[in-house]
Order: sequence, then structure tokens, then C-alpha cells
Amino acid sequence: MNKEFEFLNIIEKTLSHPEYIGDDCADLKEEKLTISTDSLIEDVHFSRLYMTPEEIAKKAMIVNISDILASGAKPKYVLISLSGKFDNDFIQNFYKGINDIAQKYKIKIIGGDLTAGEKISISITAIGTYNKEKISSRKNAKEGYIIATTGEFGSSAEGLRCLRENIKDEYFINYHKFPTLYPEISSEIAKKCTKPYAMMDSSDGLIDCLFQISKKSNVRIDIEFDKIQAKTKNKDFILYGGEDYCLVVALDEKDFKKIKGLNKIGHCSKGQGVFLDNKKIEYKGFKHFE
Amino acid sequence: MNKEFEFLNIIEKTLSHPEYIGDDCADLKEEKLTISTDSLIEDVHFSRLYMTPEEIAKKAMIVNISDILASGAKPKYVLISLSGKFDNDFIQNFYKGINDIAQKYKIKIIGGDLTAGEKISISITAIGTYNKEKISSRKNAKEGYIIATTGEFGSSAEGLRCLRENIKDEYFINYHKFPTLYPEISSEIAKKCTKPYAMMDSSDGLIDCLFQISKKSNVRIDIEFDKIQAKTKNKDFILYGGEDYCLVVALDEKDFKKIKGLNKIGHCSKGQGVFLDNKKIEYKGFKHFE
Repeated sequence: MNKEFEFLNIIEKTLSHPEYIGDDCADLKEEKLTISTDSLIEDVHFSRLYMTPEEIAKKAMIVNISDILASGAKPKYVLISLSGKFDNDFIQNFYKGINDIAQKYKIKIIGGDLTAGEKISISITAIGTYNKEKISSRKNAKEGYIIATTGEFGSSAEGLRCLRENIKDEYFINYHKFPTLYPEISSEIAKKCTKPYAMMDSSDGLIDCLFQISKKSNVRIDIEFDKIQAKTKNKDFILYGGEDYCLVVALDEKDFKKIKGLNKIGHCSKGQGVFLDNKKIEYKGFKHFE
Repeated sequence: MNKEFEFLNIIEKTLSHPEYIGDDCADLKEEKLTISTDSLIEDVHFSRLYMTPEEIAKKAMIVNISDILASGAKPKYVLISLSGKFDNDFIQNFYKGINDIAQKYKIKIIGGDLTAGEKISISITAIGTYNKEKISSRKNAKEGYIIATTGEFGSSAEGLRCLRENIKDEYFINYHKFPTLYPEISSEIAKKCTKPYAMMDSSDGLIDCLFQISKKSNVRIDIEFDKIQAKTKNKDFILYGGEDYCLVVALDEKDFKKIKGLNKIGHCSKGQGVFLDNKKIEYKGFKHFE
């Protein structure tokens, strides 16, 4: 068991009401909101060697908007906490990036906090609203469901490798810095699905998504490697690379047929675990803390 | 002008829609929510030399709940982002503190994020809900309004001094570690005021609150030193010391008379600036960045 799972287990045991732990977004049914928070820490999630303040800000916004899209809600508000050592230039460039993405996705910046600190640390809370749409949960996959995805896998990890090894491949670097989001497909799924569905973004990689869904929904998931959309040739990046922010969905077959733009890569059946081309995958969790 | 104001000015100029900047809480009228976010950084806002993980967690929760109370809404949900180097013990003690305060104020912990980092950094987003209650804004003070407060001023700064100088004064240390909040008075104000009011918590000190209200509402504020509730004898702590989390309110005189537990310290009139016993106060802002 890796450190993050261990910490989450402790938290679950410590809280009197741990029921919200598990999905990336909390679904506040009374308020018809989904909400999530995500932090990016300098030299853990990004390096100022490879990214400008504007690029860091854009990435931080995208990551958080992605969580809301994975819930099925419409991203509407963000709050931005920024901490670190910075000068006027940093602040201006950083907030230019924040503003650009806010404008692009029609999101209101409703608050934030600015504090001094050693390293740059960015914490964004994103809020989505919904009305009659269905909200996703990792527990919702069922036997017979289709596993489908948007986007391509491994390109962000490939882009990070290019940055680190000083390889000037604009395509992959750009994919790493500005992941594509799928607001229309997310919205279609939330509106058109008649059955409950499980949806995640592939922030921690494809296999991580499938394990989370398989475990929480108690189903076996089979996928075929050749069906996975990818441009990199690195199999590890495709399966385990993080930060692609593709949507990974388990949904009813009839519902799947109504949604444009989804790529089928597998299905759910009775049992447990995740299987790639009929071979069981051993997976110990995405490593944030090791 | 201090650095924080300078940064805020830059942010205001950079954003296409800066209208939410100014109050501690954003008031989302469409959703009937107020929301705020606040970060506490190790060795900037707290030191592990003086506080246990449980105490740090409690303080972080109190600080954020206080922002919601200052808006007039009812605190209902929190999200907690924790970053740093920690072990199982830290996590367990920290979340025990989070849970205790959540139970005390009937708040749901709806999400969070756990990331590796050098120093401990805690970012909490708190959400309050309201129905027919009036929500505060710093712009709402008017000529003739009363300035009133809850709690006592300077005790938190005095407590911090005791911790730093190894003076064992339980009263002040406790006030610093676990500031008292005033949910009932906040709720009374939000429910009983017939006129708009301005309310803040004294996170950055009494004079800071008065300057913010005076500036945003374009009124002169006069207060009398002898009317300010305080236990410390240090005048600087009473006027400028942060982290007391008292409520500082500017409200209509008739409304003031309906609210129990408020202490009148002054009033608003035509003009500008903040005056203590008829003497104008020069104030350059609370110093987070210097």
C-alpha cells in the first residue's frame, strides 16, 4: 500500500463523517453543486525551470476545472490560494494565466488568498453547478458497462520527459502544459445518461482510474491495449502516465451509443481487478509520496 | 503602500472581472452561498515549535469558519488541502483537530487534497449557506452607523508573545491557539438587521478592519480607546494585533439595539479615515509580506 492510501485510511478512520472521501469532487446534493480542491506545489507538481508563471497558472486552472468536468457538473467558480516568494511580475503573469483560462471556460474568479512562503504553492477550489444532470460516482460502474475515454494517453508524461531531457518536441510539451479538456462530452454524458455512470479524469493515469472504479464499484474491468488512443510509443506512459486529464468513463451500453466523441476501450464484468488484454494488472497506486 | 495591497492592485488590473475582490468572502447570490479560502503556512502563520498538529488544524478551521461568520452566513462545509512532509502520527492528530472543530460547529468535511511538499501548508475553503439573512459587505457602512464588536482585542498577540518568550500564561496562550467564535451573534445580526451592514473578523487586527470598512464605505470612523474590550495592557496589540477573530461591525443604530452581546466602541460619520479619541490614525496596512 502506498503512502497516500495509508494517509487516506487514517483520515477515514479519524473523521466522524468520512462519507465524502473517495470521489475527486464532493457532490452537495442540497445545493446542487460539485466542488473539489487541488494543490500544485513547486518542485513537486511543477518546476519553474520548465514553466512560466502564466503557464503554471493555466495548468493549475485546467487541473481543477477537469475535476468538475469529471463529476458531470458545469464548472462555474474558482477560488485561488497562492503562496510563495514572488514579485510584481510573477503576480501579473500568473493572474494573466488564471484570467485567460477563466475567460475561455466562462468561469468566475470569486476569491482567493495571497500569502508569503518559501516555495510556490497553488491551491484552487473549483465549483460546478448542475440542475437535472446526473453526477458521476466511482461506485456507479456495473457489469456489462462499457469503458470509454476521451483524448489520448501518455502524451503529458512524454511532454514532461521532453522538458526534462531538453528535447524540443512542441506537440508533447504543449500537451503537458495545456491539457485539452472535454466540457461538451462531459455535459452530454451528464445530460443523456439514463443510468448512473462512473467518470474520472486521468490525472493519475489510465490504469489508476480503472483501479479506482473497479475497486469502488466492485467490478472486473477488461481493456484492450490496441484500442487506447495514444501518440507516444512508451507503453508505461500510456498506461500509468499522469496529467493527461482525459475522461475515463464506465457507462451503460445504450447510454454510450448516444454520446459522440467517446472511444470504447473495454468493458466491465462480474469479478474484481483490472485486466489488460486478458492479463491481470498488478498496481500499487500512483506514487505522490515516494 | 505595502506589498499585499500592491499585489492586490495588480490582480485587480489583470482580471477581466475583478468584482469579487475586496471582501473576505464571496457572496454567490445565485447559489445563496458565501465562500472563502485561507492558507496557513508553516513558519509564516504558525510554528511547529509552539503548536501540535491537532492545535494547528483547529486554528486553521477556526480561522476559516470565522470568515463565513463575518459574512453573516451559516458555516456548513469545508475542504482541506494539506501539503508538507508528514508521517502517520501527524495525519492522525491533524485530522483529529479538524474533526473536533467540525463536530463543534456542525460542519461537513466534504473534500480535500494531500500533497507532498517541504513545509506544511494548509489551505481551507469554507462554505456558508443563507436563506433570507442579509450578507455583509465592507461597502455597507453609512454615516450615523454604530461601530460595535464582540470579544476582546490583543489577547491573541499577547498569547503569541508568551509562546515566543516562553512565558506560561495559559489564558493568553489559549486565546491565541483557540480563538473564540461568535456564531450566535453573527446569526442574529444577519437575521435581525433591517439595513445593510458591514462586518469583518479581526484577523488582521482591529484598526485594519476599521480602515477597510472606512475606505470601502467612504465614511469616517471614530472610536474610543476606553470602550475597546481588552485584557492585555499592550496598546499596540489591542489596536493592531491580529488573529483575535472578533467580529467588527458597522450597523444602523436601531439594528444595533436589537442585537445582544455587541460592544459599542464608536460610530461612522461623513468624511474619511479612522480616528482614535479624535486623533487621526496613520496606517499602512497589515504586514504579511515584509
